[in-house]
Amino acid sequence: MQRTLINTSLRQVQKRFNSTSVTASYFPEEPKNPIFQTETIPGPKSIALNKELGEVYDNHATYFVTDYFNSLGNYISDADGNKLLDVYCQISSIALGYNNPELIKAAKSDEMVNAIVNRPALACFPSTNYKQILEEGLLAAAPPGMDKIWTSLSGSDANETAYKAAFMYQHAKLRGDKAFTEEELATCMENKTPGASDMSILSFDKGFHGRLFGSLSTTRSKAIHKLDIPAFPWPRAPFPQLKYPLEDFETENRDEEQGCLYQLESIIENSPSQIAAIIVEPVQSEGGDNHATSFFFQGLRDITKKHGILFIVDEVQTGVGASGKMWAYEHWNLTTPPDMVTFSKKFQAAGFYFSNPDLQPKLPYRQFNTWCGDPSKAILAKAIYQEIVKSNLVERTAEVGDYLFEKLSSILSRFPDKVFNLRGKNYGTFIAWDCSSTDLRNKILAASREQGLNMGGCGDQSIRLRPTLLFEKEHADIFLGILESVLNKL
Amino acid sequence: MQRTLINTSLRQVQKRFNSTSVTASYFPEEPKNPIFQTETIPGPKSIALNKELGEVYDNHATYFVTDYFNSLGNYISDADGNKLLDVYCQISSIALGYNNPELIKAAKSDEMVNAIVNRPALACFPSTNYKQILEEGLLAAAPPGMDKIWTSLSGSDANETAYKAAFMYQHAKLRGDKAFTEEELATCMENKTPGASDMSILSFDKGFHGRLFGSLSTTRSKAIHKLDIPAFPWPRAPFPQLKYPLEDFETENRDEEQGCLYQLESIIENSPSQIAAIIVEPVQSEGGDNHATSFFFQGLRDITKKHGILFIVDEVQTGVGASGKMWAYEHWNLTTPPDMVTFSKKFQAAGFYFSNPDLQPKLPYRQFNTWCGDPSKAILAKAIYQEIVKSNLVERTAEVGDYLFEKLSSILSRFPDKVFNLRGKNYGTFIAWDCSSTDLRNKILAASREQGLNMGGCGDQSIRLRPTLLFEKEHADIFLGILESVLNKL
Repeated sequence: MQRTLINTSLRQVQKRFNSTSVTASYFPEEPKNPIFQTETIPGPKSIALNKELGEVYDNHATYFVTDYFNSLGNYISDADGNKLLDVYCQISSIALGYNNPELIKAAKSDEMVNAIVNRPALACFPSTNYKQILEEGLLAAAPPGMDKIWTSLSGSDANETAYKAAFMYQHAKLRGDKAFTEEELATCMENKTPGASDMSILSFDKGFHGRLFGSLSTTRSKAIHKLDIPAFPWPRAPFPQLKYPLEDFETENRDEEQGCLYQLESIIENSPSQIAAIIVEPVQSEGGDNHATSFFFQGLRDITKKHGILFIVDEVQTGVGASGKMWAYEHWNLTTPPDMVTFSKKFQAAGFYFSNPDLQPKLPYRQFNTWCGDPSKAILAKAIYQEIVKSNLVERTAEVGDYLFEKLSSILSRFPDKVFNLRGKNYGTFIAWDCSSTDLRNKILAASREQGLNMGGCGDQSIRLRPTLLFEKEHADIFLGILESVLNKL
Repeated sequence: MQRTLINTSLRQVQKRFNSTSVTASYFPEEPKNPIFQTETIPGPKSIALNKELGEVYDNHATYFVTDYFNSLGNYISDADGNKLLDVYCQISSIALGYNNPELIKAAKSDEMVNAIVNRPALACFPSTNYKQILEEGLLAAAPPGMDKIWTSLSGSDANETAYKAAFMYQHAKLRGDKAFTEEELATCMENKTPGASDMSILSFDKGFHGRLFGSLSTTRSKAIHKLDIPAFPWPRAPFPQLKYPLEDFETENRDEEQGCLYQLESIIENSPSQIAAIIVEPVQSEGGDNHATSFFFQGLRDITKKHGILFIVDEVQTGVGASGKMWAYEHWNLTTPPDMVTFSKKFQAAGFYFSNPDLQPKLPYRQFNTWCGDPSKAILAKAIYQEIVKSNLVERTAEVGDYLFEKLSSILSRFPDKVFNLRGKNYGTFIAWDCSSTDLRNKILAASREQGLNMGGCGDQSIRLRPTLLFEKEHADIFLGILESVLNKL
């Protein structure tokens, strides 16, 4: 088994956490490196369990069946007891590692148990402690100036409720103090204008914003997500296709971004119906980890302001520290903040932030549903946020990211025909690169898994890193060792 | 305080639970009747807390701020310590009462704690125990013959993923073994046909199926839900408007239902594009607790079969025992089962059941999202289901419902100008009636709350009962006493 050899060599290069390691304080028993129990990963138990699962549940996308009881810190365990260093983390979730003891405490708290067994319909019967839970967690973590929140259940749901807020806001602005007309009241029941809106949400090529019907209409990343599903006739605009490393192509990239902004403005001016909002990810994640610079995003903010369009930043994947800032859009230094910022994944809880009170409808049952969020998730988010602050994890992630980027740059540069376009410099651990083909990308992912490293792809031929906020230099070294070994062999 | 008097008279008529009470075994400390701490409900603490909440969260629809720590069994506590008999139960959720000790056990279990702190991306990294959790809970509870499940996060999400399954199924059937065409791959990215579907989901007047963009396009209950939100141009059909009591108007009701079936078939035959599925609630809940008979539903099943349309039964509100059957559609004795059955509320977990394996797409990432459900909710659903079975709660609910219906019928008949159209006979506690106006309905709800009874409205002028499955004859007596007193005074 080759992996044993690599494993041994890894063991040689690897020193155990030093005394300043936060991760060691959370996970003194975290594996020192990947642990192998079976000849291949997934192992036979995982394969058998997945087959059984397939009898009742769609299992077409399974990587491996996971033993969450035996996963720890940055290591994910498959059903066979193989322990892989995880830099994918449930598609960019798992902020504080598997089985984090502080989250276990939160999960066992009276507050959590109460929230689980008495799930409230929050908008009708809010709990006595809901504001406090929000203020000590999700709202304390809010982007600067955003002092209001709407909670929901997933990233898709967060975006869709933000879209609904945008439509209601724009129509209220047009309507002024007037009541709904009889025609509006009647036509909306038939799904027809003017009661149903003919406004739209504009999104960008390669953007991903979810897979429910409204959010999927703004998702433009991959055909497999969209085929056969009805979609609203909403516009899309080109997203800059930049050259990496960004600092070597400043002029060309500026031209590309300027061109995209011109095209955007032309699309807005020629749109057959009003655009209520524009939504954009700070880094297009599912679409391939595509970056743009502050120039582009400031341009978006300016154009949206000029045209009375709301500006929604989708931080579902970028938010909560991985970029080296709590919110990735803080990298941009916008002159005025976005209108709404959506979140989910690393916080488990989902929803959107805003500050303009007019984004909250004036009537009851407008922004409304049975649950309107979930206090048990908000309690977990609070615990996650408090650990992030206590252990200074955003700054640590920025530092580890810089270390990882530099080392990775050096390794990838030795395989320029296979891997290139490394990106995410000064962007925490939110790092990605391209492979020369989809096939090679998939081979690298599979070979890495066999060597005890769990990575995920994005776009057509990219690999994205999405480790926990407790991923330290020691983990980076293990990661780099495995990746180098894989690249050497492929 | 008038309520004191009523309270005293209640105490006289009320006997404590007898020895066969299941509720007493779960909640020996449940209040014997409503408890009042303040002059009005909501009390001053609740009002102050709600005002504070409004600074950060939309609180336009708040009934009262709720103290879930001090709620117990069938009694909900407001922030001031007033304890109300709850027959609304978080809009038809809370299957086993507040702070049910068996659910607290489940919430404290290692399985639950693990699921909370390590929330998986289920479709990529399913947990070793997920199939078992499903089989011992949600799947054990499945309607007869439904042996597959897709899990999601809310009733809206359950319906939208069912719609996606329907669209993918119908297009796969048309496409046969052929691959996606270049044109489909390209056009779907522009939200245009043929890649994006022009098929539709048909729903019924007054139906409610959720408030995300796809589900809201099928919701037809109230304008306030739909105004200013874009909607797909999907068809709607008339839902029978029956006369109550059903048994007194069999001929007229049959004619009405037959007429609706004729109109439905005409809409299908004249539809400009293919209808992928029809969705219907066994009782239109949000829309006013509108019933139809087995004749109508069997007709729907026959028409959908004939036209190759999928038949989706939305049991989000009716499911899980309240109707006196586990699934309300079991009342119909269909000759062939529905294609999909959606669920949420009383199970906390959400999703849809199906049996046809072709409703599961053949490719990965078709029916997919980050979470694909939530094991912590599935674990709670398992505990809920096991208690329902252990304590025979469906049959008990059927029995209590019959008792409640008969007594209620007798009381309402004394106020025929105010309240009428009592419905839900032989339908467990899933009971409703109309009031002579919206205003009177709202006054009855408010006056009842003041007397320690928490009820909810539906439709324009109806009141719906949605108690727990642990609502017993003793609770029914208290409920009836308060309602009668309110009706006497209004």
